[in-house]
Amino acid sequence: MKIGFIGLGSMGAAIAANLVESGHEVHVFNRTPARAERLREAGARVATSPAAAARSADVVFTMVSDDAAHTAVTFGEAGIATTLKPGAVHVSMSTISVAAAQDHATKYREAGLGFVSAPVFGRPDAAAARKLFIMAAGADEHLKIAVPLLETLGQSVGIVGADPSQASLVKLIGNFMLSAIIETLGEACAVAGKAGIDPMHLVELLTSATFNAPPYKIYGPLIASQRFQPAGFALPLGQKDNRLMLEAAESLGVPLPLASLVHDRFLRLRSEGLGAESDWSAVALCALSDAGLSKQPPGK
Amino acid sequence: MKIGFIGLGSMGAAIAANLVESGHEVHVFNRTPARAERLREAGARVATSPAAAARSADVVFTMVSDDAAHTAVTFGEAGIATTLKPGAVHVSMSTISVAAAQDHATKYREAGLGFVSAPVFGRPDAAAARKLFIMAAGADEHLKIAVPLLETLGQSVGIVGADPSQASLVKLIGNFMLSAIIETLGEACAVAGKAGIDPMHLVELLTSATFNAPPYKIYGPLIASQRFQPAGFALPLGQKDNRLMLEAAESLGVPLPLASLVHDRFLRLRSEGLGAESDWSAVALCALSDAGLSKQPPGK
Amino acid sequence: MKIGFIGLGSMGAAIAANLVESGHEVHVFNRTPARAERLREAGARVATSPAAAARSADVVFTMVSDDAAHTAVTFGEAGIATTLKPGAVHVSMSTISVAAAQDHATKYREAGLGFVSAPVFGRPDAAAARKLFIMAAGADEHLKIAVPLLETLGQSVGIVGADPSQASLVKLIGNFMLSAIIETLGEACAVAGKAGIDPMHLVELLTSATFNAPPYKIYGPLIASQRFQPAGFALPLGQKDNRLMLEAAESLGVPLPLASLVHDRFLRLRSEGLGAESDWSAVALCALSDAGLSKQPPGK
Amino acid sequence: MKIGFIGLGSMGAAIAANLVESGHEVHVFNRTPARAERLREAGARVATSPAAAARSADVVFTMVSDDAAHTAVTFGEAGIATTLKPGAVHVSMSTISVAAAQDHATKYREAGLGFVSAPVFGRPDAAAARKLFIMAAGADEHLKIAVPLLETLGQSVGIVGADPSQASLVKLIGNFMLSAIIETLGEACAVAGKAGIDPMHLVELLTSATFNAPPYKIYGPLIASQRFQPAGFALPLGQKDNRLMLEAAESLGVPLPLASLVHDRFLRLRSEGLGAESDWSAVALCALSDAGLSKQPPGK
Repeated sequence: MKIGFIGLGSMGAAIAANLVESGHEVHVFNRTPARAERLREAGARVATSPAAAARSADVVFTMVSDDAAHTAVTFGEAGIATTLKPGAVHVSMSTISVAAAQDHATKYREAGLGFVSAPVFGRPDAAAARKLFIMAAGADEHLKIAVPLLETLGQSVGIVGADPSQASLVKLIGNFMLSAIIETLGEACAVAGKAGIDPMHLVELLTSATFNAPPYKIYGPLIASQRFQPAGFALPLGQKDNRLMLEAAESLGVPLPLASLVHDRFLRLRSEGLGAESDWSAVALCALSDAGLSKQPPGK
Repeated sequence: MKIGFIGLGSMGAAIAANLVESGHEVHVFNRTPARAERLREAGARVATSPAAAARSADVVFTMVSDDAAHTAVTFGEAGIATTLKPGAVHVSMSTISVAAAQDHATKYREAGLGFVSAPVFGRPDAAAARKLFIMAAGADEHLKIAVPLLETLGQSVGIVGADPSQASLVKLIGNFMLSAIIETLGEACAVAGKAGIDPMHLVELLTSATFNAPPYKIYGPLIASQRFQPAGFALPLGQKDNRLMLEAAESLGVPLPLASLVHDRFLRLRSEGLGAESDWSAVALCALSDAGLSKQPPGK
Repeated sequence: MKIGFIGLGSMGAAIAANLVESGHEVHVFNRTPARAERLREAGARVATSPAAAARSADVVFTMVSDDAAHTAVTFGEAGIATTLKPGAVHVSMSTISVAAAQDHATKYREAGLGFVSAPVFGRPDAAAARKLFIMAAGADEHLKIAVPLLETLGQSVGIVGADPSQASLVKLIGNFMLSAIIETLGEACAVAGKAGIDPMHLVELLTSATFNAPPYKIYGPLIASQRFQPAGFALPLGQKDNRLMLEAAESLGVPLPLASLVHDRFLRLRSEGLGAESDWSAVALCALSDAGLSKQPPGK
Repeated sequence: MKIGFIGLGSMGAAIAANLVESGHEVHVFNRTPARAERLREAGARVATSPAAAARSADVVFTMVSDDAAHTAVTFGEAGIATTLKPGAVHVSMSTISVAAAQDHATKYREAGLGFVSAPVFGRPDAAAARKLFIMAAGADEHLKIAVPLLETLGQSVGIVGADPSQASLVKLIGNFMLSAIIETLGEACAVAGKAGIDPMHLVELLTSATFNAPPYKIYGPLIASQRFQPAGFALPLGQKDNRLMLEAAESLGVPLPLASLVHDRFLRLRSEGLGAESDWSAVALCALSDAGLSKQPPGK
């Protein structure tokens, strides 16, 4: 299959490499060209623009960092929409806002182009190991093309529905639920630590019992040991997704007090100086710090 | 082994039956005698008081509903402490306050009696199936006696430490974490529902992906379908444990904004008329109701 | 003095009438022409567009409902900026976003036009009685022209500084502080009512003591008696200002948990069906309702 | 009139001195005798116990720091209740819990003794200047004796009702409302400061406008300048009253999210090391600190 792939960050590069490995003809593009070179060595062809990568492709994937980048590579001057052929499908794996996904869907529908939103759960190592959880939404005729490909890239593909923006919302909901686990673990470790129970021991006890699930096992030890660097998922990206969730909820008329609590944690950490070097699980630092347990002031 | 067992609610009865089945000589006591009859048929002997059940026992279990009941069966007129023999161990499986556990530990230490706090995670069906997760804390010499027995009653026994009250705290932390999942699912289903995604479909998608863990699988469908009756764990009991958690945190000097949020949910539901007939997952009703999605007013 | 006045809602009409009464030549414009007729009877001249009202004016006032209206009357096709003469000053009394005020200030500076932001505290009756509290910010040369006029329209004019957007922020802060009083009174009346103290009596006691200040005296009786109609300041406008405050805080990196709490109250009331017919003090209904004390379900 | 006065802290001493100055025969008692000496110089007689101060008195005042002290001086070994004569009235000016006031009322009713709860709003300088706001509740026959005396000690006496505990609740509600103002000012100053508006200037602008009321004028400058020492009302006392309010609300079934927010602020400050040397307005430090604006880390 002829495939375009735009966006070669750590997630995108891992996914594109898997597509190459599967024998597809993959035309890659990245704003910073250096990152494309490694893919060229693996067998990909390097395009000079999103439009070039999309030209005559059957499927074009995008995996970029935010709404602005998504809009630029799609609808910008040398964007995908300028060359995408009828019958081809654009599969967006980025976490973008519900509003951006709706806007994209409307424009493609009017232009007769195919669009599937397919954001993913999982970190770069899961992407490399084809272990992602993928949420896909789009019209049946587009899903028919996208899903078989997506199934080769992750361990499961959940079909959300026909409206691409709903997959974006499910992804934001999932990240909200992860942020709730982070806050919960922060408060739990704060109480335990103050009572003389080693937070790491607490995490072991709980993840050996009812909380035997990946998010608790991944974030528990990071929080218990206050190891928030290096960033697996950078604090500002977590903050962005929290903001997108609250914006979606606001426009739907849904109060989310727990998401608002996490929102305030992000603002506080940023004001105290934390940034992209920190993992978003640093949200737990607020509860620990308020109990007098932080190993160092947040911003240091 | 000769065993006393006090408290034959749905949890206690299931555990006591397993002890009988394992071949122990079990002397049971329940405030409401009728509940003891079923155990008699299974082979237990029915005692006329906690003191009688504890007399000459090697191990005495208690599984009662709150601090007051715990204190009454232990230190009351015909309480366990009046007959427990030196070298025997009192294993408390109840969820009691940290302060009550500390008080108990102090009194038993002074009296030279053995005490292990061993609260459990799991519902009555898990108790019957010996699938409980048990958290145990106490002095080594008492754990040495209690743990082998506990291992026959659950799928794992986590050793918290030497201070019995720490096991009570870990249990309260676990219940706090479950209440956080309930609130999280309420907010998640509210957003999804308002966006036209069937909450039940959302739960299926998420529990098939990253949130593939028992608490999400148990509470997700209840919340998505707003089925809060019958009560698996009754609302007032969940409220009691939330209060115990906040009291423990207060005396440790730890602010818990997420637990406070849940605290206010409980108060609201109670004021709106919900009680013991409702499961504590009704906490999620607040988020659903505030989004205009509750199928019926909370108190109806 | 020759004055243009755009926006004749209940606030704008009262202020414009006072300018006419003071002997100025006032050219008024309102999107809905009918509202201008009453001013014409009072002695104003009715213009056919903002541009017409601003032509050859020394000072142009605007008092419109939101950012969109502000931008339209200022920078739209027949907007003020198309005719405002050099040396004249545009005095914006509307509550607009900090970002909109900054944008306006930048454009006017580049065009060499005068701009003072002068939002007000007070309801229509206070406007009519020249009892408004006015917050003004702008360059000295523009304040020199605007402030003497503003002083005839209110009981005091506070000079915030040279940056017009700071007056907008102070106005948003003031409205946030009023919303905090409303929430506070809701919680206070809920506790009192549940304890058998008539909330109206509570309000009398407190406003006769330490809380002897207009906001408590205005909102206290409304909340105690649950009279949220008619709207003095409509719920959706209060919600809009809360949103503008949170947006300003977000871009400044400031968490505002109390403003977030009020934010969620607004969303809840809107989802329960309340709208422009209700006063924003209905925010207090949430606390009363959660205590089981609301006289009727929010949305009825 | 013959008067007993128990509790000569800064509030009690100022009130007792006013009673002496009014010509009453005042028998004072304080746990730390040194504080009574100054009153002796002013004309009071120093008693050796609460019982001695109350013997043959027409009215006995108590102004002590908490429930425990109140219970000790009233029902302790040489407590007031042991000597109070029939027809005399015990006027409690302390801020005590609703439960303690109820308990006191019940016991006195059974013993045929008179009880009025009359907590006050105001700091020691207001007490000295007879400017207190007093809230009084009790049976008519007891109010008839107490109120004329109270009217000489403050600028107004509000009659809450016949149930003494209701005056305690109104006092706790008032302190809750003050704490809400403190939190509000903290958030307001945080936004202003981050936007380049001097918080002190903000406070001047607002207290010259709608917020022209004592609590804003007293706390505004303290918060804007981050001057939290010396303590006018000590942080731990503010925390105690917040806890009493939440306990009263809990037993009434009323969720108070704003009071819960303030509750968490207190816990955080205490864990960060602040104590009795700090004024309770330091609650505002949390909002300032979370915006990156605190002049020094909370606990320093």
